[in-house]
Amino acid sequence: MYPIHFDKLKEECGVIGICSPGMKNISQLAYFGLHALQHRGQESAGIAVNQDGKITYYKEMGLVQEVFSDTVLQRLQGDIAIGHVRYSTTGESYVTNAQPLVVHYKGGSIALAHNGNLVNAQQIREELEEHGVIFQTSIDSEVIANLIARYNAMPMEEAIQEALKKIRGSYALVITCRDKLIGVRDPNGLRPLCIGKIEGGYVLSSESCAFHVLNAEFIRDVEAGEMVVIDGNDIRSIPYAPNGRKALCSFEFVYFARPDSVMDGRSVYISRRNAGRILAQEHPVEADMVIAVPDSGTVAAIGYAEESKIPFGEGLMKNRYVGRTFIQPDQRMRELSVRLKLNVLKENVKGKRLVLIDDSIVRGTTSRRLVDMLKAAGAKEVHVRVSSPPVKFSCYFGIDTPTRKNLVGALHSVEEIRQMIGADSLGYLSIEGLMKSIHMDGQGLCNACFSGDYPMEVPKEGNKFLFEKR
Amino acid sequence: MYPIHFDKLKEECGVIGICSPGMKNISQLAYFGLHALQHRGQESAGIAVNQDGKITYYKEMGLVQEVFSDTVLQRLQGDIAIGHVRYSTTGESYVTNAQPLVVHYKGGSIALAHNGNLVNAQQIREELEEHGVIFQTSIDSEVIANLIARYNAMPMEEAIQEALKKIRGSYALVITCRDKLIGVRDPNGLRPLCIGKIEGGYVLSSESCAFHVLNAEFIRDVEAGEMVVIDGNDIRSIPYAPNGRKALCSFEFVYFARPDSVMDGRSVYISRRNAGRILAQEHPVEADMVIAVPDSGTVAAIGYAEESKIPFGEGLMKNRYVGRTFIQPDQRMRELSVRLKLNVLKENVKGKRLVLIDDSIVRGTTSRRLVDMLKAAGAKEVHVRVSSPPVKFSCYFGIDTPTRKNLVGALHSVEEIRQMIGADSLGYLSIEGLMKSIHMDGQGLCNACFSGDYPMEVPKEGNKFLFEKR
Amino acid sequence: MYPIHFDKLKEECGVIGICSPGMKNISQLAYFGLHALQHRGQESAGIAVNQDGKITYYKEMGLVQEVFSDTVLQRLQGDIAIGHVRYSTTGESYVTNAQPLVVHYKGGSIALAHNGNLVNAQQIREELEEHGVIFQTSIDSEVIANLIARYNAMPMEEAIQEALKKIRGSYALVITCRDKLIGVRDPNGLRPLCIGKIEGGYVLSSESCAFHVLNAEFIRDVEAGEMVVIDGNDIRSIPYAPNGRKALCSFEFVYFARPDSVMDGRSVYISRRNAGRILAQEHPVEADMVIAVPDSGTVAAIGYAEESKIPFGEGLMKNRYVGRTFIQPDQRMRELSVRLKLNVLKENVKGKRLVLIDDSIVRGTTSRRLVDMLKAAGAKEVHVRVSSPPVKFSCYFGIDTPTRKNLVGALHSVEEIRQMIGADSLGYLSIEGLMKSIHMDGQGLCNACFSGDYPMEVPKEGNKFLFEKR
Amino acid sequence: MYPIHFDKLKEECGVIGICSPGMKNISQLAYFGLHALQHRGQESAGIAVNQDGKITYYKEMGLVQEVFSDTVLQRLQGDIAIGHVRYSTTGESYVTNAQPLVVHYKGGSIALAHNGNLVNAQQIREELEEHGVIFQTSIDSEVIANLIARYNAMPMEEAIQEALKKIRGSYALVITCRDKLIGVRDPNGLRPLCIGKIEGGYVLSSESCAFHVLNAEFIRDVEAGEMVVIDGNDIRSIPYAPNGRKALCSFEFVYFARPDSVMDGRSVYISRRNAGRILAQEHPVEADMVIAVPDSGTVAAIGYAEESKIPFGEGLMKNRYVGRTFIQPDQRMRELSVRLKLNVLKENVKGKRLVLIDDSIVRGTTSRRLVDMLKAAGAKEVHVRVSSPPVKFSCYFGIDTPTRKNLVGALHSVEEIRQMIGADSLGYLSIEGLMKSIHMDGQGLCNACFSGDYPMEVPKEGNKFLFEKR
Repeated sequence: MYPIHFDKLKEECGVIGICSPGMKNISQLAYFGLHALQHRGQESAGIAVNQDGKITYYKEMGLVQEVFSDTVLQRLQGDIAIGHVRYSTTGESYVTNAQPLVVHYKGGSIALAHNGNLVNAQQIREELEEHGVIFQTSIDSEVIANLIARYNAMPMEEAIQEALKKIRGSYALVITCRDKLIGVRDPNGLRPLCIGKIEGGYVLSSESCAFHVLNAEFIRDVEAGEMVVIDGNDIRSIPYAPNGRKALCSFEFVYFARPDSVMDGRSVYISRRNAGRILAQEHPVEADMVIAVPDSGTVAAIGYAEESKIPFGEGLMKNRYVGRTFIQPDQRMRELSVRLKLNVLKENVKGKRLVLIDDSIVRGTTSRRLVDMLKAAGAKEVHVRVSSPPVKFSCYFGIDTPTRKNLVGALHSVEEIRQMIGADSLGYLSIEGLMKSIHMDGQGLCNACFSGDYPMEVPKEGNKFLFEKR
Repeated sequence: MYPIHFDKLKEECGVIGICSPGMKNISQLAYFGLHALQHRGQESAGIAVNQDGKITYYKEMGLVQEVFSDTVLQRLQGDIAIGHVRYSTTGESYVTNAQPLVVHYKGGSIALAHNGNLVNAQQIREELEEHGVIFQTSIDSEVIANLIARYNAMPMEEAIQEALKKIRGSYALVITCRDKLIGVRDPNGLRPLCIGKIEGGYVLSSESCAFHVLNAEFIRDVEAGEMVVIDGNDIRSIPYAPNGRKALCSFEFVYFARPDSVMDGRSVYISRRNAGRILAQEHPVEADMVIAVPDSGTVAAIGYAEESKIPFGEGLMKNRYVGRTFIQPDQRMRELSVRLKLNVLKENVKGKRLVLIDDSIVRGTTSRRLVDMLKAAGAKEVHVRVSSPPVKFSCYFGIDTPTRKNLVGALHSVEEIRQMIGADSLGYLSIEGLMKSIHMDGQGLCNACFSGDYPMEVPKEGNKFLFEKR
Repeated sequence: MYPIHFDKLKEECGVIGICSPGMKNISQLAYFGLHALQHRGQESAGIAVNQDGKITYYKEMGLVQEVFSDTVLQRLQGDIAIGHVRYSTTGESYVTNAQPLVVHYKGGSIALAHNGNLVNAQQIREELEEHGVIFQTSIDSEVIANLIARYNAMPMEEAIQEALKKIRGSYALVITCRDKLIGVRDPNGLRPLCIGKIEGGYVLSSESCAFHVLNAEFIRDVEAGEMVVIDGNDIRSIPYAPNGRKALCSFEFVYFARPDSVMDGRSVYISRRNAGRILAQEHPVEADMVIAVPDSGTVAAIGYAEESKIPFGEGLMKNRYVGRTFIQPDQRMRELSVRLKLNVLKENVKGKRLVLIDDSIVRGTTSRRLVDMLKAAGAKEVHVRVSSPPVKFSCYFGIDTPTRKNLVGALHSVEEIRQMIGADSLGYLSIEGLMKSIHMDGQGLCNACFSGDYPMEVPKEGNKFLFEKR
Repeated sequence: MYPIHFDKLKEECGVIGICSPGMKNISQLAYFGLHALQHRGQESAGIAVNQDGKITYYKEMGLVQEVFSDTVLQRLQGDIAIGHVRYSTTGESYVTNAQPLVVHYKGGSIALAHNGNLVNAQQIREELEEHGVIFQTSIDSEVIANLIARYNAMPMEEAIQEALKKIRGSYALVITCRDKLIGVRDPNGLRPLCIGKIEGGYVLSSESCAFHVLNAEFIRDVEAGEMVVIDGNDIRSIPYAPNGRKALCSFEFVYFARPDSVMDGRSVYISRRNAGRILAQEHPVEADMVIAVPDSGTVAAIGYAEESKIPFGEGLMKNRYVGRTFIQPDQRMRELSVRLKLNVLKENVKGKRLVLIDDSIVRGTTSRRLVDMLKAAGAKEVHVRVSSPPVKFSCYFGIDTPTRKNLVGALHSVEEIRQMIGADSLGYLSIEGLMKSIHMDGQGLCNACFSGDYPMEVPKEGNKFLFEKR
């Protein structure tokens, strides 16, 4: 099975946690919740349930709807469930690295699901290995589980806090052990995590969009540096690292998150529309129609159209059924992948001057093909507008950025890129514009992939993905 | 595996045919072509290839990308390929009824793929059975194959024409036998079929959108009552029934076809946008935002917005990953299915007066839930506008319409429906409006499901689906 | 999945039929019955059930235990069930040719399962094709079904008899339609079929060994040229062709049938032991131990040991788990296949003079390897004794014999074969000896593969398998 | 998938290791080797390969031929391979517990496969957990890997020896790390392990029968308390615990091992035949025929026949195709399981006085059914002879014995058991007889399951299987 990838950065994971003692079929709820987070990871899916401290789980490669069946879900009975979706970086990914991770230790059994990336995982791992610890996976969760187990003499919440003192990086964690569901967000709040209310308990989720299908009520985000401990209808907040520089990943607003999610008080949809509007102010152009690269550019395109008064229309059609293929992607196939996914609406673009809105450009490969396709269909001009700044720096916090030599924004000027992709003009949203579109004042966001301004010290070279591939 | 269905009519099938002698991997081309027709049927997929008259084939339940693998495609070697996708009417559908149908007869081997429905299939079948004919499936193609075989003393093209004289109903057929690829469209042209040019040969397809991925050039539609016979670069036209009343299914423009297809000279996209514009003229309303039921209402919504000057926006978010589920759909699940697929963009609809554009309303069940969801999210008013007329009559030509007692448009007045779905106002496009949106003058379309004006005599009761289920 | 084949002739199929109105889970009974017939065919398996004339079925490639699950069997509800197992001639076999065949015709629906081969199938097929009949498979059952359907004006039993008048060859048929289960055996009784009694009805089976697991009581064999019509506890005999020359396939006794079956009044086990005894009389030798090629040579080896007073022992060990492999059988693999299946018991054969009993030698390839293995393990002498005569002629009645140029017995003298396989001596059972071992007087058996004396006129060239592979 | 179990004790596992640097497709060799060990475990299968210290692996539930395909094996490239088969204790077994176990630690990566059971695994685990160690499986291998990792400062061979000092119980281990293949046998030699020579390297295997298919030459057994370190053609012996009481599991000779294996210098086949002979001396009886419960009783039956001069024959026929079923084993099914597997050769047993040889009786459930079946078929007398002593005590060394309340031999006298199973007489081989059959002098064997004389201190209660099921 070969995924058909576009020229986008990839989110690492999505996590969910549900605690509602006595509710039947809690694993079904987790299943539906993971459906809503499927866009955060399509490689593997897993659910672990906790019944009186006994944890059973199932995880497998594939989409949520492929991994789970009635039979499997019925086997997963418990009062607390956590779930995880993971995306496929490469074809070499294995079920060994799927989550949740379930381990047994002095304190009983524990299940963890992690979204994010630790910048010092390799270092801690080496320290632990010095003490004879063995590792069976290449995921950070195993490092965290080992740290927690070190402090098994302490109560669970304290043991977790001790572990958190050691780790640096980004993490949204959901953990279950004994009778508790625990959620943790890193001191910078790099990765999102929020709290919802359901009958008899609470839900934790990477994104609030999952609350809709669960009939859960949005309560609030977990704060940066906060741990929440849920036991049925009881929820306690432990601000274990309250003074970090808040730095939620701004790419969540650009591309990762679903538009119907709200993160740290900001609607993703509205932020994206704002981005389109500001983009129209920063890079106006005379044109006949604003079109989007579907689906990720659509919201910004609507904003651009509103601001510019140029009508919004559709110029590219997406094939909703093509996600993966069993056919080995040879050279011809890679050429085909854009065609398989997108087609031009010739009748709608012929003779027109177009503004093509994309949410981001990473390698630039897809952009070139789209401009070509539009021109071949008779578009008079194609003005590419990108609703985020050029990606110039690697992410160390859970996003699979290519090495800098493949980041077109790191190596080339905007004019060079314009020529490479064959556009009549090219404009990127400024960093200020992006910050404004989200928060109005730009506080509280990480924009390191655009600016290189990391919220913490990062390794000189390499990133998680190199680490995992070692 | 349970499909998550919405309140839509269902297309029967999509067909493709490729003839390019000497081209390697023609089955791969058919595979990619079927991807582009996947929206016309998700139940089963099949490909048959013809090498010097010897036909090999593979068909199975599932999506195109699930049915075919490298191994399977490599086994399918030939100069001509035909392919078929079929949709799932019910969970009881079996691979026996998958297409193409491959049969052996006096004249050699023949493979057929059929989109449409014969109104006299049952009658012909009974006549054939009188003569001792056996049937192994419940598909019309087997009736057609038997008729062709009756005339095995004639040249193939004549035998097919003799068979066509006997059948009545809708059909777009692709057939391969000996060294030929043959395409046929019924005398009314009820179901679409068009011709494309590729290197060394030709392509036939239900929709022109498949030509894009095949790098094929659109030539023209097969005419109503026309047979085309393709042998490599040779293509011959046989107008076997040239004087029929032209009656292409207007629901292709409303919902079935992909917007990037062109049918009988009309762009589906432009027709839909026109429908939205005319809808705005026929049923104007004061509102703050025009939103669509994604994705099928989007194009008309853009048209409505343009005409009404009310801004287009997004109010409902679709989960692109949820297509099917392995979880048995119990009562709670059916309640969930709309939630699994759609979520409200609360921030964008709160306090607003909305125009909600849907392409059609069949049973009305989904509409009620969407209006509820939007109101619960704070929408001040929800004005539902439907870019097609009320569906009041059963289709006998290949569309799975519910029985009349489940067709809300057949039983209730517009005002009654408005109350049922809880909308503040409700407006349907008129039949004239729909005709105008497509053809300007309304000639050449079947609108029987709206008007009851069938282009031929139809059975008093029952339709294909009852027949198949007997 | 690649079968690991030995140097044996292959049976075509096994059939079962069960009629017991009102019994729950009749498909489970058919499932268990097919288990007992699995040795007659490992390629595909199928079951069709008849409920008040409505037939549902399931058939798939694979072993009985792989094809059927609880879910599938529960869907197959009815009063009558028929089942079929088919063996894999080549890797190119497809589910299209799996049985039972289910067809619909003027008289309703009918399901057929056939063991055997018609020598005039191709001729009838051509005649039918002249009349415009189409064929969807390459199995004889489809020819038979078409013939029956021709006579749909007659009562079922008469229609079947009319059809039988046309066909020549070997057949054991089980048929169900309306409220009846019908069994037919060809006028020569070439293929076996027998009747058992269960609560509320009757069972038909290729072999009586299936009655054990069904708790059925053996009643009698269907006679050559007899049709039996079962309707619950009623059973009627129609001797439609009573005067044929009785000619049950003698290879059933040599190799195909399970030793615990009784055919036409003769125990397969006792016949095989007799064959071993007579072989010892015909080809005595001084030796220390009698060993068998497991498992097919074991019974004859016990007989040989008894008669010769040489102790029976084991010299070759069979791996019971190796049946098929997913690994493509390259050259090295083919070399391995004997090793994967058989190992020498070195400690038991070292320094001994062995009599190695095999039931038959077809190509001679395996024999050479076994003699080599035994000698390499230190056997002083290896005297090969074969409990059947040399196979010299092709079978036209349902056995997949290789072409004569691959039949070592057709091309070489016994002494030449001895040298080819490296044995110290070689002796085959005589035709008379084989006849004596089974029937005492040799009446009623077909021994054409040994003698060339066919019980009916056969085609000059070609056999069923060539026909199917055309 | 439900296994059809007989009334037998179950082996835990089989292991294989192959080291031959530069040989292509070493994983294919491991695959073929595991085929030969399939009788030691049918639940899961796994192979890990080591290329320059980098370990890749694949393990899954199922038979060897189901788990591995060409594609999988081609991905497993390396100079060293280890493999493992595991049997299914219950339907609750998961892939998590499949082996080999692959872990990463300070010293690099290591893969382990283990046959046996540690009696102090739980205790060590608790000690390790005290120090903060986490566990992800319930297999002993994870305990061993953790111990080895503790000593990462030492050279590998020394680290393993340090680990071995801590563990007590039974183990045959194959380990690969860096450029080495290491084999270890516990100080008592409870579980078997032997060494073979192949081109360019060596093979380790639970049983010598695997050497045949690998074309490997048997060299010798690994000694009790010996570690062997293999690096290509170099092999070193480290007698790390040379003075243990030798105690190879005598049940290997009774039932587990394949007859074509040689263990600690004794042929399993000859031991079993001896057991039959001595059984005839200890429990003679007047009878007409000696028959076996196939296949496990066959060798002893031949021995019994030889000694008693009563002819050996076959009375029970085994269905070679029935191993597992997808049909849920309800009550009726359990009744059926003996019938599905075994049938009586009525013609051969009718009117005869039979000696029925079984290798062992655990619960006694199958024996009762077999005696009934034989008597129902007309056997005049059925004298049951068992070629091993009554199983009276639980095993703590890797065999899944039922709790004592289900061990018929622990609760009842021989006469009581005779009555329970309905035999005319019953005789068990004595412990001395069994020892004599194997070793002549009884030294070096564990017969604790018969005698309660364990070669080391064992837990008061519980055994591995309880531990795993906690």
